[in-house]
Amino acid sequence: MSHPERRLEELGLTLPEAVSPAGTYVSAVRSGDHVYLSGQVPLRDGQLIAAGRLGDTVSVELGYECARQCALNSLAALKAEIGDLAVVARVVKALVFVAATVDFSEHPKVGNGASDLLCELFGDAGRPARSAVGVSSLPLNSPVELELVVELRRPEHG
Amino acid sequence: MSHPERRLEELGLTLPEAVSPAGTYVSAVRSGDHVYLSGQVPLRDGQLIAAGRLGDTVSVELGYECARQCALNSLAALKAEIGDLAVVARVVKALVFVAATVDFSEHPKVGNGASDLLCELFGDAGRPARSAVGVSSLPLNSPVELELVVELRRPEHG
Amino acid sequence: MSHPERRLEELGLTLPEAVSPAGTYVSAVRSGDHVYLSGQVPLRDGQLIAAGRLGDTVSVELGYECARQCALNSLAALKAEIGDLAVVARVVKALVFVAATVDFSEHPKVGNGASDLLCELFGDAGRPARSAVGVSSLPLNSPVELELVVELRRPEHG
Repeated sequence: MSHPERRLEELGLTLPEAVSPAGTYVSAVRSGDHVYLSGQVPLRDGQLIAAGRLGDTVSVELGYECARQCALNSLAALKAEIGDLAVVARVVKALVFVAATVDFSEHPKVGNGASDLLCELFGDAGRPARSAVGVSSLPLNSPVELELVVELRRPEHG
Repeated sequence: MSHPERRLEELGLTLPEAVSPAGTYVSAVRSGDHVYLSGQVPLRDGQLIAAGRLGDTVSVELGYECARQCALNSLAALKAEIGDLAVVARVVKALVFVAATVDFSEHPKVGNGASDLLCELFGDAGRPARSAVGVSSLPLNSPVELELVVELRRPEHG
Repeated sequence: MSHPERRLEELGLTLPEAVSPAGTYVSAVRSGDHVYLSGQVPLRDGQLIAAGRLGDTVSVELGYECARQCALNSLAALKAEIGDLAVVARVVKALVFVAATVDFSEHPKVGNGASDLLCELFGDAGRPARSAVGVSSLPLNSPVELELVVELRRPEHG
C-alpha cells in the first residue's frame, strides 16, 4: 500500500483540522500499542453535514456520507495524536452509532461509509471488526457517531 | 474445565457456520492477545430467530434466546479466527445492544442469554465485564446485537 | 497529583460499596495492563438517584449528577478489583449511554459528569477518550450508564 495520506490525496480528499473535544475528554488516548479514539460526528468546517435520523429525514446515502466524514475526522484526531498515519498497523474496531427510527434496519450500509474509506486508505489493514446500532439521538442531532480503536506498528517494526 | 467445544456438545449445541459480514468489515480482528469480535445478531441458518423489540412484541424469554444465539454466532466467528476455542483465556467484555422500547428495563435478563452460555462453556473465564443497553433499532430489525472482546492464552502457556 | 482517594475525601466524597452485578457477569475484568469495567448505573445506597430520560423528565443538571454517580460506582468496582486507585496509570476510554428522547442533543454535557470527576481525581490521566450517545432505555429505567476502560501502572513502575 502507498502511504495512507497519499491515498487520501489520490481520492481527492484532504484531512480536515482535528475537531476540538466537546467536553472534559480528549480526542485520542494512546495506551500500549493501541489508540482509542473518541466518538466523532460528521462535522465539516465546524458544521454538521446533516442532522436528523435515518429512517426519517436522513437517507441511507446521506448517512453513508456522514459516516465517511466521521472517519475523516477520526483520522484527523489520530494523526494529531501519532503524527503519521503510516504507523497504523491495523484498524481494529469500529463502533458505528446511527441515530435511527425504530423500524430502520440498514445500519450496516451506513457503517460502510466509514469502513469503505478506511479500506481505501489502509487496504485490508483498514477493514475492522465492526458493530452498527441504532440509537435514539446523538450530540448536536448528528445522524452518525463513529468510535475507533487502532493498533500501531511497534517502533522496531516501523 | 473440559474443552469448550466438548461442553457445547454436552449441552446439545452445535457451533454454527460463521456468519458472513454484512459490509466492509471482518467478523474478528486479532490484536495482540485479544480478539475483537464484530456485532452478531441472532441469525440461525440464515434467518433471524426473532425480529422486533423488547417491551413490544419480543418477550424477555425470547430476547434471552436471541442473546444466546448471538453468543453462538460470536463463538463461530471466534473459532474461524483462532482455530480452537481452547486457546481462549478469558472472555473480557460483552456489550449487549437490546432493541427496546423507552420503558423497557430488563436489559440484564436479556444479556444473561449470552453470558450464561459463555459461563457454561468456559466457567469463570467466560464471565465477562458487561454492559446492556436499549437501542432504537438494530440491523435487520434484530432484537439483540452482541459484541465481545476475548483474551487468548499466550503460546508459551498454551 | 495527590492520592486519588485522598482527592475524593478533599471533594467531600466517599467511595461507595461496590454494586453487585445484575446478572452473569462481573463488575471488572483485568486483562493485561487494562481493566474493563461493566456498565454502571447511578445507584446510591441501593436506589437510583433518578429515573427516566433526558429531554423528558430528567434535566441536563440531573443527568450530570447521574453520570458522576456512575463514575463513583465505577471507581468502587475498580478499587474492589485492583485494591488501590493509585495504580491507575490512565483512564483510557469512557462510553456514556444517555437514555434520551429523539430530539435531545446535549449528551456531552451529561457525560461531563463522569469525566469531570475522573479529572478531579486523576488530573490529566483521568481525561479519557469518550463517546456519548442517546439510547432508548437503560436497565432499571436509569438515565445514564457508564462503561470505562482503565490502564494500570506496570508493577516495575509502581
